[in-house]
This record gives sequence, C-alpha cells and structure tokens, in this order.
Amino acid sequence: MPLTLSELSEAVLATQYAVRGPIVAKAQELERSGRKIIYCNIGNPQSLGQKPLSYMRQVLALAECPNLAQKAPGAFPDDVKETVKTILTGSKFGLGAYSDSKGLKFVREAVASFIAKRDSDPVLKVESDPEHIYLTDGASKGVQAALRLLIASERDGIMIPIPQYPLYSATITLYGGLQVGYYLDESAGWSLSRKNLDEAYRRASTSGTRVRALCVINPGNPTGSLLSRDNIAMVIAFAREHSLSILADEVYQENVYSEGDAFVSFARVLAELDEKEVSLFSFHSCSKGFLGECGQRGGYMEVRNIPSEVLAQITKLQSVSLCANLPGQILVYLMVKPPRPGDPSWEPYDKERRGILAELARRAKFLAEGLNRIPGYSCQPIAGAMYAFPTIQLPAGKTDENYCMALLEDTGICVVPGTGFGQAAGTAHFRTTILPPADQIEEVVKKIAEFHGAWR
Amino acid sequence: MPLTLSELSEAVLATQYAVRGPIVAKAQELERSGRKIIYCNIGNPQSLGQKPLSYMRQVLALAECPNLAQKAPGAFPDDVKETVKTILTGSKFGLGAYSDSKGLKFVREAVASFIAKRDSDPVLKVESDPEHIYLTDGASKGVQAALRLLIASERDGIMIPIPQYPLYSATITLYGGLQVGYYLDESAGWSLSRKNLDEAYRRASTSGTRVRALCVINPGNPTGSLLSRDNIAMVIAFAREHSLSILADEVYQENVYSEGDAFVSFARVLAELDEKEVSLFSFHSCSKGFLGECGQRGGYMEVRNIPSEVLAQITKLQSVSLCANLPGQILVYLMVKPPRPGDPSWEPYDKERRGILAELARRAKFLAEGLNRIPGYSCQPIAGAMYAFPTIQLPAGKTDENYCMALLEDTGICVVPGTGFGQAAGTAHFRTTILPPADQIEEVVKKIAEFHGAWR
Repeated sequence: MPLTLSELSEAVLATQYAVRGPIVAKAQELERSGRKIIYCNIGNPQSLGQKPLSYMRQVLALAECPNLAQKAPGAFPDDVKETVKTILTGSKFGLGAYSDSKGLKFVREAVASFIAKRDSDPVLKVESDPEHIYLTDGASKGVQAALRLLIASERDGIMIPIPQYPLYSATITLYGGLQVGYYLDESAGWSLSRKNLDEAYRRASTSGTRVRALCVINPGNPTGSLLSRDNIAMVIAFAREHSLSILADEVYQENVYSEGDAFVSFARVLAELDEKEVSLFSFHSCSKGFLGECGQRGGYMEVRNIPSEVLAQITKLQSVSLCANLPGQILVYLMVKPPRPGDPSWEPYDKERRGILAELARRAKFLAEGLNRIPGYSCQPIAGAMYAFPTIQLPAGKTDENYCMALLEDTGICVVPGTGFGQAAGTAHFRTTILPPADQIEEVVKKIAEFHGAWR
Repeated sequence: MPLTLSELSEAVLATQYAVRGPIVAKAQELERSGRKIIYCNIGNPQSLGQKPLSYMRQVLALAECPNLAQKAPGAFPDDVKETVKTILTGSKFGLGAYSDSKGLKFVREAVASFIAKRDSDPVLKVESDPEHIYLTDGASKGVQAALRLLIASERDGIMIPIPQYPLYSATITLYGGLQVGYYLDESAGWSLSRKNLDEAYRRASTSGTRVRALCVINPGNPTGSLLSRDNIAMVIAFAREHSLSILADEVYQENVYSEGDAFVSFARVLAELDEKEVSLFSFHSCSKGFLGECGQRGGYMEVRNIPSEVLAQITKLQSVSLCANLPGQILVYLMVKPPRPGDPSWEPYDKERRGILAELARRAKFLAEGLNRIPGYSCQPIAGAMYAFPTIQLPAGKTDENYCMALLEDTGICVVPGTGFGQAAGTAHFRTTILPPADQIEEVVKKIAEFHGAWR
C-alpha cells in the first residue's frame, strides 16, 4: 500500500506556513487563468522589480567562471577581480567543493569583523569570534538549527511574539515543541512589554511547559517595528532571570526607515550589559536589506555565551547537511565586506544601495499613510523591515481569512491574513509587503480602499 | 545560566556523523601544524583537483550577471547565451528571487524529461511528473525531507544497509526514529539478499518496531557496488509485502565503472513491474557524477506512488524553508539538459566529461587492485560510486578506529573507519575515496601497504 496521510506524524500534519498557504495557492491559480496578481504575500524583492547590486553579481559571475578575467578583461572592474582572487585563495577550491561544515573560514572571519565594527563604538569594543559563526542557506536554516538544538522534549516551549513570522510556529510544531506566544503591544509601535512576557511565561509554566528560549524579530516581521536599546535590555534581563536562550532574528537590520532611529543588535546590548549568562543565537541574511538576494540563500548565525561542548554539538548537526551553498556563502562575504570609498565599484554600489533604500523608505511611508486614510484601518508607522500589518475592522461574523480571499478575488492583491502570524483575540489584520514599485503600490492602496468600502 | 549540554535532547547528543568526525578533526589539526594531508574521507572531487565543467560554469556566470553578454560578447559560446535566455525566461526573475517551494517549474519539467528518457526504451515508456519532483539543496536535504515525513513516532524504524552512508543513521537518530540495519552481502559484491532483509525485518518487528521504509544506495556508498535489475525487483517485492516506502539514493548513477554493467533506476523497475503500491522517493545530485559540484548544493527528489494529499504535505514542509538555492537549481537544469552533439559547447563538454569519467574508472580499478595486493586486505571490485571499502585484518584488541587514526598520524592519509558506516561483527573496514589524482593515489596505496605491514 502506498504511504497514506494517516501514517504521518501529528507534528507534520499540524505544521502550518501561511506565507505560502491556501491564499497564495489561489493567487497562483488565478494567475494561471490570466488574472494579473500583485504578490504582496512574501518579502521577495526581486520578484517585484528590485534589481540586484551590480558589484555582487559581477563577483559571483567571475567566481563561478574565473577564466572570464582573461577572456573579457575589460568586463570587470579591478576591485571585482581582486575580490575574486581573495575568494579563490580563501576558499582554496572555488565554489565547487564542500566547505567546512561551519562555512568558509575567511567568510566567517569577515562576518566577525563586520559584527565587531557594527557594534563597537569609541567607548565599548564588541568582539566576535569566527568560530562562533555558522554560514547557513538563508537565515531560515539557522533558525531551524537553533530550534532543533533547543527543543529537547515535547514539554519544551519557545516564546514567540504574537504576531510572529510563521517560520517559528511551523518549525516549533514540526520539531514537537510548544509555542508560548507573548503579545507585542500594538499601541506602542509593536514593542515588547515586560508585563506581556511575564504573563506568557507564567501561563506556560503553570501548565507544565519548560520554557527554553525567547524569539525576537527586530526589525519586526510582520509588524515593521524597531526595538529600542532599552526594550532589548529588558528582554535580556527577563531571559537571564528565567535562564532562557534568546533567538534574535535580525535579518532586516539594514531596513530602517524612521528618521533618527537606528538598529541596535542584541549582541551589542549583551556586551553593554557585560552579560555572560544569556545564550544568544542571532541571524542575518542576504535575502533582505538592500541586496534582496532571496534566491541565493545566503545567511549566517552567530552564537554567544555558548559553552564549547554545546558549540561542538551545533557543529556536528551542521555537518550532517555538509555545508551551506558556496555562492550563498560568497554573497555573505560581499554583504559584510562591500566596496569602500575609493574602490572602482564604490560609486555604482553606493548609488544602487541608496536608491533601493530610499525607495523602500518612501514606500513604507506611503503605504502606512495610505492605509491609515482608509476608514476602519489603523496601521502603526513602518519603522523597519518590509511589511505593514494594519488592524482592520471587519463586519460581524467575517474573518481576516474571508477578507484576504475576497480581496484577492476582487483586486488581484495577494496578502496574508493575520491569523497566519497570530493576533490578539477579537482583532483582525493582514500582512502586506512594501515591495511593489511606486506605480503599483499606489494602485494597491487605492484598490484596497475601494474594496474595503464595498465589502460586506 | 547559559545553555548546557545536559539541556539538549538525547537525539541531538546521540547523532553521529563519522565522515566529518574526530579523525577528520585530527587531520585538520595536523594540517594546521604543517603536515600534508590527503583527504580521502569525503567525496569532494574538486577539493582533490577535479575541474568543473566549463559549460556549466559559463552558464552560471552569465545567469548571475546577464549583462556580460553585452559587455563581453565574445566570451560566451552561442548555446551558453541561448541557455541563459531560457533560464531567465523560465525563472522570470533570475537567480535572486525565491522560487516556488518545489523549485523552478521549467527545471522540474527538464528533470521529468530526463528521467523519462533515462528509463524508457522502445518497449517500455516510463513517465515522470514535474509535480512529483522537488529541487533540493543537494540530495542530503531531500533524504532528510523524506525521513522527516516517514518517522512519525519513536517506534518507527527505517531499514538501512550495513554498511550505510551516515547521513541515514544521523538523520534517523536526530528525528527520533529507529535504525533497522540489514547486512549487505560483501562476498557477493555487497548486493542485497532477501534473507538478510527478512532477518532484519523480523528482528525489528518482534522487538515492537514499526518498520516504515527501506533505504538503498545504488551505486553503493561506501561499498562501490552496483545493483542488478533483479536485485532491485527483489527489493521492491519485499517492500510491497511489508507496505514499506523505498528511499533510493541514486546520486552516483553516472559513476559506473565496471564494463558491460549499467545503472538501473528504481523508477525503471517499478515501471517494468507496473508496481503502483510501493511509494518511492529517489534522489539525485550535482555533487557526484562527473560534475562534482558539491559546493553548489544542487539536487532533486522524485516521488512515485504518493497520493496527492501526502504530496501536499511534502510541499508544505518544503515551503517552511522557502526554496532550494537558485544557482543549485540551475545546475540541476544543466545536469539534466547538457549540450547536445552539434551545439557549440558539445565538444569541450563531451571531452571534459569523458576525461573525468575515464580517470575515475582508472582510479577505481587501480585502487581496488592495489588494496587487494596488500596482505590482510580484501576489497570488492569498485563497480560504481567513488569509494573503496576494504576489509582489513587487524591485530587482536585493535579497532578500525585505532587503525585509521594511526594511519592518519603515520601517513597523512585521512580515511573513515568502518564503524562510522556499520559492518558485520568481528570485521573491520575503512572507506576511502577513489578521488586523489593519479600520482597521489599511487602514493596512497603505497603508503597504506607500508603502514599495514609495520602496524601492530
């Protein structure tokens, strides 16, 4: 008899991943039948017209095929050629051999320098150890590795924000752990509150859950929030009190739009507090920021305050899958070590980078303002990341899932219902990206407003 | 308190992956201190001097940076440019966007055509459905996806060959399932016997294990064996009888060296037998064969006789990790749709391909013969794959792990003890690749012979 559904585990059957769920399937079906669909369901910048950075692609091309430097000497700027030499020397065998399980050492060294430089200032020197860095196929694989390590029994719970990015809920379910949701405070720009953390922890503990870790997404997905230094320090103190590890999803660290604000990393605040007792797993990616290279699957995980014998276990688990893809590893290298002023590629790199970030900031502002003008909508400012997560008032008896399906069928706009991320009882939201280009995003806001006015 | 070893799950702690275990760590340590190491522990062809195929790399380079076609029009043959056009059209957004969770559709269609063509003959037409194909980051990720699906409880057992490739044992342990080892018949060229399958199944069943699936590696890793059509038919009949799924690891399908023999796929024999009751997961990769592109992490999984509701579950699980890396997906496309006679790239492609395969065949023969000449060694013919797995006679009280460590320290040759793969009680083996280039492989055999003569 072939394999049947009844033979699969509860965990497999219970796993849900809304970002690619039934509404997206419906969108693809409509598209096949000739409808124009605007995909706002997923942070996939290049699918909505964002261009890759020229420098990154030139380096990747030449690293794949080094003899192009002889065949077409004029086609590559000198710094591209120099960087490829460094890559070929550093990797020893180019892009075609397995690397160490942790990833190429020269790339991990560059990541460590990047973190140290990002987080240090004249007063505080933050260090980073290349041996505590793992190169991963996108950040998702790093998050999964950390959760694999932390969920040791079916009583183990992981605290996740509500709303959260469903990678977390899906992976926790699949690995047989328990989700311990803590509410973000929508009215305070989706920040974390000690009260909500305490409440979630107490509820879980009294029901017998052994809480192991706390996940934070900063800048926020789907919320678009940006955490302050003090909010992060509060989370670290809470984690210390309860011996929790922290998973800090910092893939949107370059996507900060609100003026005067800046991204602050968990690593930085850990160093500031000289905190040695809280284990930290932090994640970064080439898929977001201004690179938007989702398809290349480059990312890294940095761990802190992890004893060497646990580090050895992480390395062992990584080795079962051999290594992250090498083009992705190289892209991580280029992300953390981009051209510098004076390099031949600096000007085009800087111009492209600024152009993308300015455009994203413009759309973030336009989208939040536009949604807030719709009666029945309320949207927090989009301080960072790539999403809006507005509250919507729905007619009695209707769900956000009904709403998003109707929106798709009526307008061709594909967004993800708030249910897929979690939301306070009695509220309704959806997540939309800020990624459609200028003309399309105006259309998106206009169509949503018309749809909302007419929908019953 | 930071995370401690005692908080990790039994499954994590128990997972072992010998191919990158303590002997490899020792080798790296010796290398850092200046010793020359010959890494025969892992099938990583390009780290031992194998060159990537020019056509594949040219296409990947141009797909990363399409405007090189204008900047350096003479640097790319016309068929490379045409193929890149097809890729850019088929992928819609190039290499920088997430694809469907299953992988790019035009690549899956090309894989389906490849399978159909590979397995059909004038009498029997074998079909393959692109919707039953998943593109994966190397074959390892496909194997892990299948095992994730099949291990539903801690009573679930997976039959694996002894010796096996430790990806299987590691993943089964990590996912909380049970290994049900069945012995391969060394004296019959490491083939499968019905008797050994029956015995393993009976032993597991009587101890309360619910056997779910049977893994077969063909051509064999670490054994170098090649299964006959009848051996495969026997396995399928056995699986049918016990309602088992089959995992067919066919990543070495291009690596067949014994004259007159040919690779036969499980899909082909399933079709021959018109078998609709046995679920099959088969795996292929860009890492082995003559491409040897381990670092690019391209691979696919094809499933057969899987009902649509189970297929939907596989797709859902794949979607949590978003998609396989796009350069790897493109490399799968190139693997299944290489240049054809008459194309501008045909001649160099064919010359490079033949050169690599002839060299591997030569080394397989040389290595097996050389090892067999050492008193106390016995090595089956290397019919396929990239490894020798000789039996060695050891002095009383010594283990294969002692032996391999001493061999490393004495000669700089890094091989993996048989214990890491499993072996019959009272026997000792190790796995070595056939990959070192001609001059080095002679040195390897010579040094092993000298070492073996002197070791006590």
